Order: sequence, then structure tokens, then C-alpha cells
Amino acid sequence: MSKIAVILSGSGYLDGSEIREAVGVLWALSRVGAEAHCFAPDIDQRDVMDHLTGEPVAERREVLVESARIARGKVRPLAELRASEFDALIMPGGFGAAKNLSTFAHDGSSGTVLPELGYILHQFYEAQKPIGAICIAPAVLALAFPGKKIELTVGAPGDASMEIEKLGHTHIATKAHEIHIDRTHRIVTTPAYMYDDAPLHEVFEGIQSLVDEIVSLAANRTLRKVALAEA
Amino acid sequence: MSKIAVILSGSGYLDGSEIREAVGVLWALSRVGAEAHCFAPDIDQRDVMDHLTGEPVAERREVLVESARIARGKVRPLAELRASEFDALIMPGGFGAAKNLSTFAHDGSSGTVLPELGYILHQFYEAQKPIGAICIAPAVLALAFPGKKIELTVGAPGDASMEIEKLGHTHIATKAHEIHIDRTHRIVTTPAYMYDDAPLHEVFEGIQSLVDEIVSLAANRTLRKVALAEA
Repeated sequence: MSKIAVILSGSGYLDGSEIREAVGVLWALSRVGAEAHCFAPDIDQRDVMDHLTGEPVAERREVLVESARIARGKVRPLAELRASEFDALIMPGGFGAAKNLSTFAHDGSSGTVLPELGYILHQFYEAQKPIGAICIAPAVLALAFPGKKIELTVGAPGDASMEIEKLGHTHIATKAHEIHIDRTHRIVTTPAYMYDDAPLHEVFEGIQSLVDEIVSLAANRTLRKVALAEA
Repeated sequence: MSKIAVILSGSGYLDGSEIREAVGVLWALSRVGAEAHCFAPDIDQRDVMDHLTGEPVAERREVLVESARIARGKVRPLAELRASEFDALIMPGGFGAAKNLSTFAHDGSSGTVLPELGYILHQFYEAQKPIGAICIAPAVLALAFPGKKIELTVGAPGDASMEIEKLGHTHIATKAHEIHIDRTHRIVTTPAYMYDDAPLHEVFEGIQSLVDEIVSLAANRTLRKVALAEA
């Protein structure tokens, strides 16, 4: 059974994880019998948004504590994540990825990744373990691996894809229910709610394909390791 | 295309809607091409729970505003819901149903239903429009329709089912992926996260069956009305 780390960034698409995308990942992992383990940084949110008005409010909320709403309490601080214990990593989207996990929302291609997450991403990458990123979360990978020429999708070309390409990556246009697989870097992406009005079942279709692909890439890696050990 | 009202009660299972159940309802409705319209009461939450520790915190949050996190901003005050404009109503669970939509969590069978919701539920019921309730939300129906001898499920027999039976209803034991259909009252229920450790895909299986059944009951009602009009 594969063990997958899911990185949350709050609970609500304007200041945290896109709730539906996060639930879609957990559902798709459950479907294929993979173990999902949720992690989130133990930091304050960059901001708190009123999701009814779309305006910021003068309030303080913590990323780990809010992520627990999606995780039903079962979420650990990101600092406790050991890449060696997991087969793959998946990041749902939402502005939390671009505000709490990185500064992409404010700084675009000159943004930075939360150091503890940057370190973890490099560990997965160097161990050739697959990484999945949804919606705007591919921008976090773009920032973490500048110049690596990764093929990523954030849906239709636009501001986000332009910033990603400035970092030396290639943007691939896709629809909400589609994924893009970069086999060289073992990175799978799907645009999900980058299409604001996408029907939810199409968003889930993309996420399900992404999860299936990540689990299959992780299984192939294990088989390859076993074959190498036996050779 | 059927129009279904979805009643939210916050965002987080300990003080609002069970997030995954709410998303499951929206996904299943999207799958069958039904229109989902979210509503939530414009009131303060009964309490705010830290979902990491499971403890209450001294904070104030509003049910409508927090529900907007699940609804991606597209949620209207419950007071604006006109039963005549919808084919059916579905209530996801979470403690929000038992704390914000009713007082069941604190008062059990002597609890009360939020008056504006009680009125709406009676309108749907009297118009013979189907009602779906998930997890602990069937307790809201039990309180709204005492003595109506409705067959409801909240999973395994226990404290919740005992309180429901005190109100003159019949509890039917089910598993997480199952539903119970009361054809007399056109009420469909599924236990979902009443089983705390249920795999998410089983919870979604129950919710998908519930949604399919609600949409089909709503379509049959429309056909019946047309037949009566033509007779």
C-alpha cells in the first residue's frame, strides 16, 4: 500500500487550501487504497479572507489549525514530514499554496517557497519520488526548482503561466478534467479550479487521473528499486 | 435539470458542516447534471472548535460566512430559500447540523430546529418534495417532524438513534456506504461520518447513492404532477 503525503495550506480557496480539491485528493487516494497523511505548516496564514464578500478581514488564523478542518484533526506539522517515509507528495491548490506555502501570489516569479517545504520538495525530487500539484500549486514547484525545465500546467495561458515560464519551465495548456505528466521529472499537474467555473465532477476527474498517475509512478519506482537491488 | 437546495451549517465537522460530506453532495449533484444551490443561516455559530485539539476556542464565526468557504462564495442566506423554486433539499452532516441548524447536540430529543429551517423543511415535505439528510442531519428531520414515524438512519444504534426514536421515528441501522429510503415520506438518509473512521470513498458511495435517489424521486414527482395535470 503506498503512503502519500498531502500538503494542506489552510481551509478555503481564498486564503488556504481549495477545500474541494483537497477532498478530491483524499477521496481519490481512498479509492485506490493508498494511505493519505496530511501535513501543513505550523504558521499564521498570510491573511484571512471573508469568502462571502471576497474581502480580507482583520483576523488571525493558523494554517495547521485550519487545515485540521479538512483533515478531521489528522494533520501533522510540515516540519515532521520525512520524505523517506512516503512514496509520493501531492499539493492541492487554493491561494494558500501561493500565499502560505510560497509568496507566488504577491511576488510571482521572484517569489520564495516556505523553506521547510522547499527542503521537503527537494528530498522527494532527488529520491525520484513523484510529486503531484493541483490548480496554482504547480507555481510552488516552479519556484522550488527554477531552471529545471519542468513541464507544468495551470490551465489556460495567462499571468500565472507567464510567471512560471520566466522561471525556465514550460507551460502546457490543459482543460479542467485533464492532467499533464512530466515523465522526466515525475511531476503531474492538473488545473482544477484555475477554471473558476469548472463543474465539480470535471475537477474531480482531473484530480482522480492525477492521483492514479502518482500512485502508479510511485509503484513503478518501487519496482525499479527492487529490480536494481536484485541485479 | 433538477434544482437542489443544499443546506450548509459552517465549515468543519466539529462546529459546522462536515466538509467532505458537503463536497460529496456537490460532486454527486454535478455528476448527474443537477443544479446545486447552497444556503446557510445568517447567524453566529454556536461555538468555534479548534479542529486540531478538538477543544472550543474563544472566537466568533458566522455560519453563512464560513459556509462560503465550501461554496466558493456562492451561498445565500437561508431566509431567501423559496421551496417553490427547488425540486429537493439535501442537508450534509457535521456538528453544525446539531449545533447551528438545531439544538440536538445539547438537547437531544427535547431540542428545537432553527425556525427558518423548520418552516422550509415543512414546505418541502408538504409539497412532497424529497429531502436527503446525511450523518447527524437526520436528527434535524426527527426534531422537525415529531411523531411522523419516519424511517431514518444515523448508522449504528446508539445515543443519537435513541433520541431519534424518542421522537416517534424508526431507526434503521446501516453501514457508511449504505442509504435508507423512506418512500412514504420521501426522505433518504445515509450515515457517512457517523462512522468516524469510515474510508472516504465509502462515505462518498453512500452520498452518491443518496443524491441519485433524491434526484430520481424529484423527477418522479414532476412526472406524477404532469400526469395528474393531463388526467
